[in-house]
Amino acid sequence: MGLFTKDIKTMNDLFVHQLQDIYYAEKQLVKALPKMAEKASDPELKKGFLTHLDETKTHVQRLEQVFKMHGAEVKAVDCPAIDGIIEEADEVAGEVADMAVLDAAVINAAQAAEHYEIVRYGGLVAWARQLGRSDCASVLQQTLDEEKTTDRKLTSLAEGKVNLRAAS
Amino acid sequence: MGLFTKDIKTMNDLFVHQLQDIYYAEKQLVKALPKMAEKASDPELKKGFLTHLDETKTHVQRLEQVFKMHGAEVKAVDCPAIDGIIEEADEVAGEVADMAVLDAAVINAAQAAEHYEIVRYGGLVAWARQLGRSDCASVLQQTLDEEKTTDRKLTSLAEGKVNLRAAS
Repeated sequence: MGLFTKDIKTMNDLFVHQLQDIYYAEKQLVKALPKMAEKASDPELKKGFLTHLDETKTHVQRLEQVFKMHGAEVKAVDCPAIDGIIEEADEVAGEVADMAVLDAAVINAAQAAEHYEIVRYGGLVAWARQLGRSDCASVLQQTLDEEKTTDRKLTSLAEGKVNLRAAS
Repeated sequence: MGLFTKDIKTMNDLFVHQLQDIYYAEKQLVKALPKMAEKASDPELKKGFLTHLDETKTHVQRLEQVFKMHGAEVKAVDCPAIDGIIEEADEVAGEVADMAVLDAAVINAAQAAEHYEIVRYGGLVAWARQLGRSDCASVLQQTLDEEKTTDRKLTSLAEGKVNLRAAS
């Protein structure tokens, strides 16, 4: 996209731009999730991050599939939002001295990433349907469902165990 | 917080740090929302942003109240996540040529900010309860409920009207 031209003229352009944005975000998360798993001390949380890493690799492949289905070039554009979310996760984690408190901080940081994706995939699914691309919508919906499931699992892990331990 | 010291040693430290983070984020949104209202062409969306601007000013005051209730200094720390979300919103909006498509883009950008806040307030409410501060939790819960309501309103505006117009 050009800096001085307005390249998004139609909803289709916006859909493709947002695909490129989330494609970048997913690829950054493939790099960030192993670091989150490393920081986590609770074994269930650590395992959860590694499982979600596998899912995230599938999300990257699904996006490549949607680009192709839609006849668009597989391409990433910078996504300052996910960069900021990951930068903040690193910063906060770097300041936490206690392992149990670190788990609580890392879960919340991971949920910030999940919710960013939930918003973007939510928009993409709605726009795909509006564009008559129910085939693309259905592939994107699978990922959206997985992001929501991961977010719910993180909440339940935080509230059922990790926060309790961090406060004790 | 120091760059080379691990200043977060307890859940209470994490709670206060995250209060400082969302305090910064809310103040940035007080600056960003009038710009979003300006970009929006749909009158209902424009009005929605201005209503949420008033709510956001109340959220800032509620955070100041929670800092005081908790005996902590009213202070903001940098929040790269919200900076990234706002930067991305500006970038995308700057690339959209069509007014109806711009509305669809701006709604999704605003939802990214809402979801960031939903995650942070969700964590803060859970941590406040864990720390035995149900008084703080109850003030923070009010804001969390308002952020969720705003997010639902944006989804309904997008799917009920704005996306349809943007695709036509």
